[in-house]
Amino acid sequence: MSRPKRQSPSGDTPKSGGKVPAERLADLAAASRILAAQGVVDGFGHVSIRHPAAPNRYLMARALAPALVTPKDIIEYDMESNPCNAAGRPSFLERFIHGEIYKARPEVMAVVHSHSPSVIPFGLVDVPMRAMFHNAAFIAAGVPVFDIREKFGATDLLVSDSPKGVALTEIMGRHDVVLMRAHGSVACGASLETAVFRAVYTEVNARIQHWTAALGDGAPIAALDPEEARLADKVNQGAGVRAWHLWRTMVRSQVKW
Amino acid sequence: MSRPKRQSPSGDTPKSGGKVPAERLADLAAASRILAAQGVVDGFGHVSIRHPAAPNRYLMARALAPALVTPKDIIEYDMESNPCNAAGRPSFLERFIHGEIYKARPEVMAVVHSHSPSVIPFGLVDVPMRAMFHNAAFIAAGVPVFDIREKFGATDLLVSDSPKGVALTEIMGRHDVVLMRAHGSVACGASLETAVFRAVYTEVNARIQHWTAALGDGAPIAALDPEEARLADKVNQGAGVRAWHLWRTMVRSQVKW
Amino acid sequence: MSRPKRQSPSGDTPKSGGKVPAERLADLAAASRILAAQGVVDGFGHVSIRHPAAPNRYLMARALAPALVTPKDIIEYDMESNPCNAAGRPSFLERFIHGEIYKARPEVMAVVHSHSPSVIPFGLVDVPMRAMFHNAAFIAAGVPVFDIREKFGATDLLVSDSPKGVALTEIMGRHDVVLMRAHGSVACGASLETAVFRAVYTEVNARIQHWTAALGDGAPIAALDPEEARLADKVNQGAGVRAWHLWRTMVRSQVKW
Amino acid sequence: MSRPKRQSPSGDTPKSGGKVPAERLADLAAASRILAAQGVVDGFGHVSIRHPAAPNRYLMARALAPALVTPKDIIEYDMESNPCNAAGRPSFLERFIHGEIYKARPEVMAVVHSHSPSVIPFGLVDVPMRAMFHNAAFIAAGVPVFDIREKFGATDLLVSDSPKGVALTEIMGRHDVVLMRAHGSVACGASLETAVFRAVYTEVNARIQHWTAALGDGAPIAALDPEEARLADKVNQGAGVRAWHLWRTMVRSQVKW
Repeated sequence: MSRPKRQSPSGDTPKSGGKVPAERLADLAAASRILAAQGVVDGFGHVSIRHPAAPNRYLMARALAPALVTPKDIIEYDMESNPCNAAGRPSFLERFIHGEIYKARPEVMAVVHSHSPSVIPFGLVDVPMRAMFHNAAFIAAGVPVFDIREKFGATDLLVSDSPKGVALTEIMGRHDVVLMRAHGSVACGASLETAVFRAVYTEVNARIQHWTAALGDGAPIAALDPEEARLADKVNQGAGVRAWHLWRTMVRSQVKW
Repeated sequence: MSRPKRQSPSGDTPKSGGKVPAERLADLAAASRILAAQGVVDGFGHVSIRHPAAPNRYLMARALAPALVTPKDIIEYDMESNPCNAAGRPSFLERFIHGEIYKARPEVMAVVHSHSPSVIPFGLVDVPMRAMFHNAAFIAAGVPVFDIREKFGATDLLVSDSPKGVALTEIMGRHDVVLMRAHGSVACGASLETAVFRAVYTEVNARIQHWTAALGDGAPIAALDPEEARLADKVNQGAGVRAWHLWRTMVRSQVKW
Repeated sequence: MSRPKRQSPSGDTPKSGGKVPAERLADLAAASRILAAQGVVDGFGHVSIRHPAAPNRYLMARALAPALVTPKDIIEYDMESNPCNAAGRPSFLERFIHGEIYKARPEVMAVVHSHSPSVIPFGLVDVPMRAMFHNAAFIAAGVPVFDIREKFGATDLLVSDSPKGVALTEIMGRHDVVLMRAHGSVACGASLETAVFRAVYTEVNARIQHWTAALGDGAPIAALDPEEARLADKVNQGAGVRAWHLWRTMVRSQVKW
Repeated sequence: MSRPKRQSPSGDTPKSGGKVPAERLADLAAASRILAAQGVVDGFGHVSIRHPAAPNRYLMARALAPALVTPKDIIEYDMESNPCNAAGRPSFLERFIHGEIYKARPEVMAVVHSHSPSVIPFGLVDVPMRAMFHNAAFIAAGVPVFDIREKFGATDLLVSDSPKGVALTEIMGRHDVVLMRAHGSVACGASLETAVFRAVYTEVNARIQHWTAALGDGAPIAALDPEEARLADKVNQGAGVRAWHLWRTMVRSQVKW
């Protein structure tokens, strides 16, 4: 009502991109809980979608543990990551990850940021992630590593403003996943379902790669080659709906929205 | 009723092999959920049985996450993997794995296909799976690796037609388990209970072999020898009923069918 | 009533050692479920106690998955592992593990046999288990490995008769835990609580040793020394009651007995 | 009422520091259950807080498995770890860990002791823990290892009296976490929420470091540097409230207090 605080640097609360269908807000809240149930996020991490009707707006929960998010916790943001309707609710410090990716990548419709534990090692040592099986085909194009220290020196590691978000986005380029040294990773996609799928299978693939590397002990790994990956990723974007359907059904059985 | 779509290449919906006892359909649906509960399948993977009365038909769920399958989701297929009673329900793309194995191996009565994560590394590096303990005795005869690239070049990795199913079956030979490079594996058996048992213990054995290989660091592994394996496998096929009874009881406590 | 089958080799059903307090039967049934809940047993494995009033009798569930055992499933056996009151209920094939240990070790009051997965590697490669922390102090005295092949050649790996039980018991000697090559392990103790504690912490210790060995990569491991182990084990047998209390409470909340 | 046993070496039951708000006792009991739910403690381990009104008193559960603790189980202790209100309830043998840290470190308001399994290896081999990601920033300052054997020779490994607590505290120095060789670890903080956060993320960080070390196989690890750690830790102490909120909410949904 009358409580929205001014949070925009320019001084004005940005205008909303319009009402979002309730089912879509529920899907986004469910995505938070799915990521928690799949072990991709714990008390931290977040998922967003681009506003379905306004490409220069995005939607993300208020600063809250992912397993607790409900549709009422969703806030709308502009491309500078200023909230349109915070109404006093605190925002995630790292929302600039989302805002800057939406700005730089018009085809991206959803973004997941997590500290998924099996993935973190690949940002700490010089061993590239590779696609261990068809479900992780999106990894075959390469997973760059963003080291915030290179441009910003010693920081708290968080992507907590636009320049850091821009730097991350530049390292990410056209890839679907980017690692953040000593921090976590970001996965994105052309739909919420695909971004969640990629966040989950980045973690699963990391576990498989750990075991494969240990088992092979330096021997070559017959991972997906680029053409296989291109073909498999196309199938995944369709068949992935089956995993989403499972995960969404499980959330639906636990909440009343 | 009047909705069955023509899906057979020859143009006709194949005739059913006859009514299947309700308890057997429930067992097959339960097997899907058992494999999910045991971590062998996630949103993907499938299990089938040969039609109990018609050896040239098999039964498998419609394309659906295994944890959600109910007896009403079971479709009947002919040996070319054409559905007899799809009634508009989509089929798994990789049903040809099942159809071709039933065609080539008359003694096989059930087939499981999964992407069980500890198993995948053995298809990616040149380290053969070995039987780490008596429950995994079926592995001692060797687990061949099917690399779809050898015959079909770059694909989406899926066994999505008969020729690919035939190629997989040829590599599998008379073995109970076959690995699929950068994809997953297939386990089969002379009963549904045995096929599920083998899928579960292929995954358990893989985990044990990872730890054994790391611990031994190249030292010899005193795995089952072929004669021990032959004797142990015979016992497993009887005693394995105890595991099935546990798993089936757990599913029964969760569903109303 | 009138159904007991003769199962004794000598032709007679052995006489019972007397009625066992209901609470003790419930504890034994609960121990089965505890071992399942702690990941020590799956569909297989068993736990027994010596008859509280008759040292030449022991009590163990009928052949049944440990997670399903109730007090009504408990059968009494003599030292030759002949059932006193089977009443047609099938016995575990490997009950001779228990019978022979009770015969050879008068101080042992409870025995657990399992295929606990992190433990199996230590029976397959030549790396001895060591006590990684005070709760696993009982391991410091050494964990011998029984290889059934040495005396019996190629078998199905099961300790399915008295001579095999005797051979296992001879290798075990005065130790609290013995590994069985390509099979599993046995833990015992002067009380049910202690035997269950040891089975659980053998598995926990194995996991810790896997990580320690990998981390140290050949460097010395500052495990418990023999005198520390002797002192710590004494404390564990008292403080271990706290773990039993937790586990027993959890079972009690799930069953009506 | 009339049952309190004299447990103070000086012969008198110490005086209470005053009534503690019920909500704070509930938080402490919940912290026990949170640590159990997060896999940091099992049947053993304990958490304490300094008395909010009396800096020379602290609060900790009676000797009980952490998952079972309720607010009624909380006992108050003086700095010598003598109970003020035991009323016959047994105390943890290792309460001296807590008492001596509160004595030596006035800024510490909460202490957790655990045997969290991924952490134990770092006390057994000469590989220092390092901060693998921002949430574990508190580790970057170094994690010393207390080897009780150095000062006390062969013991049962327990910190079961004041001199052992003093020795542990001396090795700990100003660090937030200390490892105990062949035993476990201690984490502390300026609030209950921070101490629990550190205990949880010490375990998570240990798992990540195991995988990183294996993956890198001796290659340098780009862990947090000291200045990054200092900055990140400050943020964690604020943002960590979000994890606590999640964990506390989950406990609240399971108990009636």
